[in-house]
Amino acid sequence: MRKKILLDEKDIPKQWYNLAADLPTPLQPPLAPDGTALNPKMLERVFPANIVEQEISTCRWIDIPQEILEILTIWRPAPLRRALALEKYLKTPARIYYKDESTSPAGSHKPNTAVAQAWYNKKFGIKRLTTETGAGQWGSALAFACSLIGLKCRVYMVRISFDQKPMRRTMMQTWGAECIASPSPHTHAGRAVLKEMPHTPGSLGIAISEAVEDALSDKSGKSRYSLGSVLNHVLLHQTIIGLEAKKQLKIAGEKKPDVVIGCVGGGSNFAGIAFPFICDKIHGAKIEIIPVEPTACPTLTKGPFAYDFGDVAGLTPLLAMYTLGHNFIPEPIHAGGLRYHGMAPLVSQARVEGLIKPRAYDQVKCYESAMLWARTEGMIPAPETSHAIACAIDEANKARQEGKKKVILFCYSGHGLMDLAGYDKFISGKLTRYSLPVHKIRDSLCALKKFPPAKKIKTGKW
Amino acid sequence: MRKKILLDEKDIPKQWYNLAADLPTPLQPPLAPDGTALNPKMLERVFPANIVEQEISTCRWIDIPQEILEILTIWRPAPLRRALALEKYLKTPARIYYKDESTSPAGSHKPNTAVAQAWYNKKFGIKRLTTETGAGQWGSALAFACSLIGLKCRVYMVRISFDQKPMRRTMMQTWGAECIASPSPHTHAGRAVLKEMPHTPGSLGIAISEAVEDALSDKSGKSRYSLGSVLNHVLLHQTIIGLEAKKQLKIAGEKKPDVVIGCVGGGSNFAGIAFPFICDKIHGAKIEIIPVEPTACPTLTKGPFAYDFGDVAGLTPLLAMYTLGHNFIPEPIHAGGLRYHGMAPLVSQARVEGLIKPRAYDQVKCYESAMLWARTEGMIPAPETSHAIACAIDEANKARQEGKKKVILFCYSGHGLMDLAGYDKFISGKLTRYSLPVHKIRDSLCALKKFPPAKKIKTGKW
Repeated sequence: MRKKILLDEKDIPKQWYNLAADLPTPLQPPLAPDGTALNPKMLERVFPANIVEQEISTCRWIDIPQEILEILTIWRPAPLRRALALEKYLKTPARIYYKDESTSPAGSHKPNTAVAQAWYNKKFGIKRLTTETGAGQWGSALAFACSLIGLKCRVYMVRISFDQKPMRRTMMQTWGAECIASPSPHTHAGRAVLKEMPHTPGSLGIAISEAVEDALSDKSGKSRYSLGSVLNHVLLHQTIIGLEAKKQLKIAGEKKPDVVIGCVGGGSNFAGIAFPFICDKIHGAKIEIIPVEPTACPTLTKGPFAYDFGDVAGLTPLLAMYTLGHNFIPEPIHAGGLRYHGMAPLVSQARVEGLIKPRAYDQVKCYESAMLWARTEGMIPAPETSHAIACAIDEANKARQEGKKKVILFCYSGHGLMDLAGYDKFISGKLTRYSLPVHKIRDSLCALKKFPPAKKIKTGKW
Repeated sequence: MRKKILLDEKDIPKQWYNLAADLPTPLQPPLAPDGTALNPKMLERVFPANIVEQEISTCRWIDIPQEILEILTIWRPAPLRRALALEKYLKTPARIYYKDESTSPAGSHKPNTAVAQAWYNKKFGIKRLTTETGAGQWGSALAFACSLIGLKCRVYMVRISFDQKPMRRTMMQTWGAECIASPSPHTHAGRAVLKEMPHTPGSLGIAISEAVEDALSDKSGKSRYSLGSVLNHVLLHQTIIGLEAKKQLKIAGEKKPDVVIGCVGGGSNFAGIAFPFICDKIHGAKIEIIPVEPTACPTLTKGPFAYDFGDVAGLTPLLAMYTLGHNFIPEPIHAGGLRYHGMAPLVSQARVEGLIKPRAYDQVKCYESAMLWARTEGMIPAPETSHAIACAIDEANKARQEGKKKVILFCYSGHGLMDLAGYDKFISGKLTRYSLPVHKIRDSLCALKKFPPAKKIKTGKW
């Protein structure tokens, strides 16, 4: 039995898959804060027009430019692996496959969209990208992409991570990016915060505001902002994950997966693995599709579907999505990439339609699963990825109890080599459980009442 | 043109290659400290008999047991990649290939032998392995292997690294190993040092002494010691690197490499990539084979060929090798894995025979090369690996000057994601150059005079 299924470079997918083309009900459009329709032209101050075009496209397939494919082939096609040692340990009749996105130079799935975004910006004549980063995975992915494509890059990194994770900063600098602690004296937004709270640890909300302001205030017009998750074009670029996995499952002799799993923060790696299979589900295939989020930030399992800002400062358009309220600040779990108050509109819509069934797991359960994984399969996963692993283990145990030879597929979104502090806490028994009491989100949800309501949707049955 | 050449799992080499079978002059045997011949039985207190058998074998091909192959296929066959972006940047007619050993769960080539050693120990009935580690690469590789094979593992980690690299320690613990700062109160050797110097940063020499003593003093007889480089069996296990590369070069349409490069500390990754090609060279192929060492520890370029201890404390047999003297302490360069006073006897013998042509590079030149690599090829290399990259760049530039379409192959021995501190120093202009003045090794070489001289060898011409 083969441990890994590799695709040849020539078999890399040549198109991205756009779920917007197949959703039973069209996406509800982004709105301006006053509830009026948003003109795509308004987005073009922040993103280049060729990316805005992708953002609003409803074409099913979008060609991947050859030059992007050439950079992606540094690590793509990524291996599909079979977790034989874990299966044996669990004594499960299930066959567990995982799509290994940890092999990119930045160690996660993030470069799939970073490379595409950098390329489209360059093609549009942009010289410089700005972005924010929390734990550093997205910032390093964009730094990597800009380095190879030839763009300047400035990353606003949340102050506390900037101080606690100097190696992530060094990684970005090695790829030539400028990495600045946020709040910074470079922007109005940053200076205002520093004046009020000179010793603040910063937040993703502040860092987004700084990065957007920085791009907008470049008078040459040659700077733009780049986002690592949530938006339609970002999710589109990630579908190469699921499209490759589909080809590889076929090579492995599997007709289809019975269960598809991905962890969710903003939604991009989950969308990457799941969307091509959601397409099959819409067209009749029986597949259970599970996004897994932390109990500390249970957007899809406990939040309402409503119009809300994508960022804390309220600079983005209003998006129709599951949300815990844009003021919600999640507890400091180690899976920093899953600490986001909202959920990608495309993922949210799939939830509304009943196409996906979310779950929430506590981080202690996830680290237990990550430890079992490391000691059977050998690789140390990212804290985010451990959520998908925990769910895959649950599903494999269920398959044993039911005596079913299920095919389980999940996205191994990244390795944990730059994020070992959580393992240290787990091993020394100091890891905290976080389960969000409902009353804690009531206040931040109140703020949503002033926005137009998201439409009720008559959903299909899957 | 393809960026990477992958082998299918079924094409993984089924045998290791033993250079001892082909060396024009037989290896000079290890000696007891008094100069008498060493009985292999004496080694069996430290290593299991099946490993001692490999250590002294002169069979050309040694079968790789199926169970070892099954674990190696977690990440093997490893990709052979073509450095197209670097070639373009250098405007070289050379074709640069690199064998990517960074894809193992521990991030370097070390697991190739760790898995084999753990398996042979387990098969021999051993329950527990001890070892030492400096920067942590070898310790984490052995922890990984013991975890998957089911052995207990205790790693004595040099105190200064234990304190400065807590993440490497967490990595070992995640794989279930016990990681102890050395000197420790667990051994006579450790206690003696602590009594004299309670605040010592420790050294590899002390850690080796502790690990060996620990294994020897287990009264159950079920503990053994494991070494990550230098010895014949370790180099043997690494030859899978070069054997795979050979198959892959063939797939790429290359008849043979013109230049083969690897960095050298104890010699194991260099041996891995080079030995199968040294075999071709002995049988007539024209190949330049270059081990690259740091100018701070120029064993092969400046040391004499002599009998010396493998460790600082003098616990090992005397080995015929290039050496800077077992008391030599190299400057604190960032490539911790290349800070070794001696050189593997098999690599040393290949040098004596004129089969390889060593070079020494300063670390500043190596980091410059690593930065260029990260910004063209996209991956951040280990500080050790940057020595091989620097040499590959020199050779590619030479090929341009000569107008020759040379085929350059080197071993990309590991990624640098756990060792970014050196990059930080380089970027901030604080990296120190180290070139060893000859007078500094004179004293430690004096100590060799009491040992029997290594025989002069009449060498062939290549």
